[in-house]
Amino acid sequence: MTFTPADPDFESRVRASFEKQKLMATLGAELARVEPGAIEIRLPIRDHISQQHGFVHAGAIASIADSACGYAAFSLMGADSGVLAVEFKINLLAPGAGDHLIARGRVVRAGRTLTICQADVFAVAGERETAVALMTATIMNVKGRAGVTG
Amino acid sequence: MTFTPADPDFESRVRASFEKQKLMATLGAELARVEPGAIEIRLPIRDHISQQHGFVHAGAIASIADSACGYAAFSLMGADSGVLAVEFKINLLAPGAGDHLIARGRVVRAGRTLTICQADVFAVAGERETAVALMTATIMNVKGRAGVTG
Amino acid sequence: MTFTPADPDFESRVRASFEKQKLMATLGAELARVEPGAIEIRLPIRDHISQQHGFVHAGAIASIADSACGYAAFSLMGADSGVLAVEFKINLLAPGAGDHLIARGRVVRAGRTLTICQADVFAVAGERETAVALMTATIMNVKGRAGVTG
Amino acid sequence: MTFTPADPDFESRVRASFEKQKLMATLGAELARVEPGAIEIRLPIRDHISQQHGFVHAGAIASIADSACGYAAFSLMGADSGVLAVEFKINLLAPGAGDHLIARGRVVRAGRTLTICQADVFAVAGERETAVALMTATIMNVKGRAGVTG
Repeated sequence: MTFTPADPDFESRVRASFEKQKLMATLGAELARVEPGAIEIRLPIRDHISQQHGFVHAGAIASIADSACGYAAFSLMGADSGVLAVEFKINLLAPGAGDHLIARGRVVRAGRTLTICQADVFAVAGERETAVALMTATIMNVKGRAGVTG
Repeated sequence: MTFTPADPDFESRVRASFEKQKLMATLGAELARVEPGAIEIRLPIRDHISQQHGFVHAGAIASIADSACGYAAFSLMGADSGVLAVEFKINLLAPGAGDHLIARGRVVRAGRTLTICQADVFAVAGERETAVALMTATIMNVKGRAGVTG
Repeated sequence: MTFTPADPDFESRVRASFEKQKLMATLGAELARVEPGAIEIRLPIRDHISQQHGFVHAGAIASIADSACGYAAFSLMGADSGVLAVEFKINLLAPGAGDHLIARGRVVRAGRTLTICQADVFAVAGERETAVALMTATIMNVKGRAGVTG
Repeated sequence: MTFTPADPDFESRVRASFEKQKLMATLGAELARVEPGAIEIRLPIRDHISQQHGFVHAGAIASIADSACGYAAFSLMGADSGVLAVEFKINLLAPGAGDHLIARGRVVRAGRTLTICQADVFAVAGERETAVALMTATIMNVKGRAGVTG
């Protein structure tokens, strides 16, 4: 699917907003790619995001998948819109292990109020990509609410 | 519902495993309460876990809810079992703002292979508790898999 | 939680709308109880709603849970509102077997645009109730859209 | 992705099991296509599966998506296995209206105990296909449990 963003300046708006998500910096996540309706976030696998067996904690996987979904939705919206996650569901397919994770979020359906997104998360080890998680998310377009833009 | 843990030493086992989840330390989360089939995790609200509007990132909320569900399931299992999250779904009910978050996870149904849990997450500001999220999760009981115990 | 319905005539409005859901009649489901923000639907267990092993099909369980959630949300809304399900997730806890199923839907959080609901489904066999499913759902309040009221 | 079924006779096994799902006959659903790890179910849109606005009830949509996921998983399993749905989540993207619905289920990851599937549901009106729903589901492989095969 191809989407036309409402705001031609979507990329700088997405990047500026991502910089404000302190959790992404805390985890070590970077915004790798910004296309209309499609976002890629990269997370190096390091010890400080682990669960008890040494794999990446499902919460860290969900965090980058949620941000990838939210910014995929946000990339299509007008400059006066903010986004809030309504809900998401994630299936964990394999342990998060390797060099880094890549979360690829994309818009499935963009509505006036709600946008449905999907994210695939892969673990990359050398040349090899393994699917580790699959998320579906509902993102709300919020306009004119104090404190919720960008 | 009241549950009888398979291992009378469940609390120390849960606490030892929680200590190994480096993500919890990275977020600043603490294990507040450990009962058979019921876990409480506390997360002070600080800037380093925020999203772009200054609220707690949904991924941080999901992280403590997921751990609360996982350890609620784990608390009932035998000493030779490990847990893995199969999937979870979270509905975000209100922005995460206030002094700290409390995630209360509990077992809904404990099966041989799969345990279904639910977690409620509240934001606490002074005397006031606001429901911020509701999670349902499927947790797998893993035995005898290398690297997956505790 | 106690809710105040926006429309004092909510019960007759819910009952009239339920009558229009032909799927409920096809399954054999009845509206058992209507309270503000809480709905009970009863489904006799008969052969025509079975899956391949003779239990009630998960789709039939989801159907009554979804209607219970939708009408729990609808019961609190004004007379000019219609509801649409945005998403739901269901965990199946035990096979649907016995005399009949009861789905109990209730509002968890009623927002202006979105209402979050939860439903518990039980199988009743004689005196015994067994939890068979747990649903969380997001319901949208739709106003002024052609064909979507009641 | 290409999958190799454990049982070369998978198609007749899937078709025989589908015939036993009385709910499918009650809804009017037909098994359109059976490939290894991929299933298509067709549901003519008729009045007896409607919700209150005349669209197809979300429960009927979920029913065919759930069966498409379950049989996609089942098609890869050995002849002694049965399947049970553990959980599913569905996002409703557009009203179910038109001539018929098509649910396309496919395996995302086939594990020893659990298989993760996804289904896309489309409404077909003449030449036009509209995406109406997106499901992710967890299906359990059940062996040697009385009454749960086929």
